[in-house]
Amino acid sequence: MTMCIVNMKAYDGCYGAKGLELGLALEKVAGEFSSETVLAVGAPDIRLFSENLSIPIYAQHVSPFKPGGRTGAVLAEAAALSGAAGTLINHSERRLTLADIEASLSAAKRVGLATVICSNNVNTSGAAAVLGPDRIAMEPPELIGGDISVTSASPEIIGSTVTHVSTLAPEVGILCGAGVKNGADAAMAIELGTEGVLVASGIVLASDPGAALADILQGMEQ
Amino acid sequence: MTMCIVNMKAYDGCYGAKGLELGLALEKVAGEFSSETVLAVGAPDIRLFSENLSIPIYAQHVSPFKPGGRTGAVLAEAAALSGAAGTLINHSERRLTLADIEASLSAAKRVGLATVICSNNVNTSGAAAVLGPDRIAMEPPELIGGDISVTSASPEIIGSTVTHVSTLAPEVGILCGAGVKNGADAAMAIELGTEGVLVASGIVLASDPGAALADILQGMEQ
Amino acid sequence: MTMCIVNMKAYDGCYGAKGLELGLALEKVAGEFSSETVLAVGAPDIRLFSENLSIPIYAQHVSPFKPGGRTGAVLAEAAALSGAAGTLINHSERRLTLADIEASLSAAKRVGLATVICSNNVNTSGAAAVLGPDRIAMEPPELIGGDISVTSASPEIIGSTVTHVSTLAPEVGILCGAGVKNGADAAMAIELGTEGVLVASGIVLASDPGAALADILQGMEQ
Amino acid sequence: MTMCIVNMKAYDGCYGAKGLELGLALEKVAGEFSSETVLAVGAPDIRLFSENLSIPIYAQHVSPFKPGGRTGAVLAEAAALSGAAGTLINHSERRLTLADIEASLSAAKRVGLATVICSNNVNTSGAAAVLGPDRIAMEPPELIGGDISVTSASPEIIGSTVTHVSTLAPEVGILCGAGVKNGADAAMAIELGTEGVLVASGIVLASDPGAALADILQGMEQ
Repeated sequence: MTMCIVNMKAYDGCYGAKGLELGLALEKVAGEFSSETVLAVGAPDIRLFSENLSIPIYAQHVSPFKPGGRTGAVLAEAAALSGAAGTLINHSERRLTLADIEASLSAAKRVGLATVICSNNVNTSGAAAVLGPDRIAMEPPELIGGDISVTSASPEIIGSTVTHVSTLAPEVGILCGAGVKNGADAAMAIELGTEGVLVASGIVLASDPGAALADILQGMEQ
Repeated sequence: MTMCIVNMKAYDGCYGAKGLELGLALEKVAGEFSSETVLAVGAPDIRLFSENLSIPIYAQHVSPFKPGGRTGAVLAEAAALSGAAGTLINHSERRLTLADIEASLSAAKRVGLATVICSNNVNTSGAAAVLGPDRIAMEPPELIGGDISVTSASPEIIGSTVTHVSTLAPEVGILCGAGVKNGADAAMAIELGTEGVLVASGIVLASDPGAALADILQGMEQ
Repeated sequence: MTMCIVNMKAYDGCYGAKGLELGLALEKVAGEFSSETVLAVGAPDIRLFSENLSIPIYAQHVSPFKPGGRTGAVLAEAAALSGAAGTLINHSERRLTLADIEASLSAAKRVGLATVICSNNVNTSGAAAVLGPDRIAMEPPELIGGDISVTSASPEIIGSTVTHVSTLAPEVGILCGAGVKNGADAAMAIELGTEGVLVASGIVLASDPGAALADILQGMEQ
Repeated sequence: MTMCIVNMKAYDGCYGAKGLELGLALEKVAGEFSSETVLAVGAPDIRLFSENLSIPIYAQHVSPFKPGGRTGAVLAEAAALSGAAGTLINHSERRLTLADIEASLSAAKRVGLATVICSNNVNTSGAAAVLGPDRIAMEPPELIGGDISVTSASPEIIGSTVTHVSTLAPEVGILCGAGVKNGADAAMAIELGTEGVLVASGIVLASDPGAALADILQGMEQ
């Protein structure tokens, strides 16, 4: 089954009641497709989204800690109790040390969260994959948050990641984590051997987020 | 009015439904005293605690960002919409750069959160105070999380902080942020010129947290 | 006496034998003026520059540690023994926590290094100044590394910093840390009440670095 | 050939002229054995040690950057020009993000430095190894800097690391990075399949560092 993780980031309109409204609109669209659509939200919003939506809600980050004296942490335990079904780890906007990626992964697994480690090139994708997450999401830095599309820019970096990760850790799924702007990009991502996409601005900042999600889901499923 | 901030940290039993149960017990005790009692909770729990308690809930940390592409952030905006009334900044377990302390402070003020910057000695207390928070909480490193009580160990460091901060920024309140284990410590903190205390393990890890809170509130109010 | 700190950063041509050649050229120019001209270099180059130049060499950073188990640290002790006469602390490219700024400052003072804490706005300049360094260098983020000159862009932010710091800590010198491209900018910086400038690309990336330094020193001294 | 990296850390007596004296004593001992003995020193001391010793000098850390506006960085280029022959990366006292480990590794390779990535458990050792360093040094956290010896405490964690890394990246050498106190520990490390050891306090804080090094080299070579 293909997968689309919509990262709400901390964009204006993507948290609180307004964010939930957007989430409801996206969920409605997601229901018309067979892919798994997931929303990744900020820690203060995990509970609000989880209580009001049926699609899986992911944390955007969990701390590399066990319960204890860890003021300001986002415990995997607390995220799970708030309704999270999974978590991103090491997003390009929330980089972690290697030791902490491994510890956050362990924490997430301990409480049954699905895990997606973000990586920035072919080499770090391999390293992330051998740690044993459910998936990695490869975000080529030159494609993050920009207008450049992975189909036009660098399909080969996705292809090389798929090859490298498949050799080292064939059980780990791969998501195309940047440069997905539309259905054609999403279709290309699947063609290159990924399980799906991790998208943020391409959907949540689109003039019609629901239509943007529909286009991407359609692209992946054709 | 004296103040007691109970930092729930990320201790086992301090988040989710169990944490809420503890919060309700503490709130009941707080109602018998005239001090302002506040609970500082992890980001995933702000909404749960805010919706179910009447006493103020503080975030343990807010990110130094405006809304935007900030995956994994705890936006002050999102914390406020989840019900937070204030926030700790720069806790010893979540240290920030000077630039980020200032930016987190601005973010918190922008959305009307009460602000408490934590500091680790007389000099950094002065620096934190001139940034203009509502309060600073001084945590001498040698007293954090241990069994040493501020009354027996180093009352002079609290006294010096009060003097230094009063000179530089007389409008900023001062909390004693470590070494408060019981009512005698809390009484000493007030005597030394602070507005109150920031306590964690001394209350939430006590065998009877409600009794521990009562003892501390009584100490502050006599 | 006015002061010009030339930050060599880690630019190509600014370290090793080539960097030393540039340093010698700058030293020759500096000798024709009465201002104190200082070169701030990377840790591996402190000894090379110190042994071959007479003008003061500053470290670009020192660690907030005492000697001990601190692999990868740049100890103030080791910097001083390598010939450093001073150090930058908390440069915008090497931000530190507030606690670490204070600890790096203590470490530098312990071994007699002159100290310059960098700051990013009026508020953080005040906070940095009350820690008690010899100088602060104010780097408005919008002026760092760009082509915008402080004279045309925001002289008032330098003026406000001078006023704020003078009130809180009149003994602390102030440097204009960004937006100085030429003699006119340097003259303006002095006029606004600073002791001098902290310059990097404006000199070391200039087609004729010696001439660029001469222009700035002349601007400051007229 | 077996290998012994002596990490001078930032211990008192391990930098400057005193540190060099210690380095000369260790070099003399190293000359009596066939293992490769290396000294890892702080950035300000790379030049001093390289100019005065014949055994390889490693940096304790290099920054994940190319030359540019990177104040406070330890450029691999500058380390190499100062005489470094290799570098540690991601030491437990200088942890890096996964992306930065990869970038520091690339930087080091770009200038021909030998590379040793430190790791903290079996999983992170695998991840570090697939990045392609010359060696990894496994430092079980429970053994770092303490009095516990790897022979008595947890030989199996070294054995598991050897097995895991050999499967994923057989060309990468493995060092035992903690818990080596004497010749028996060193012998055990070799027996478990490592190429050698990374030692700090066990040698440089010993009452007779030369004798401690001799004991360890002898242990490895028997």
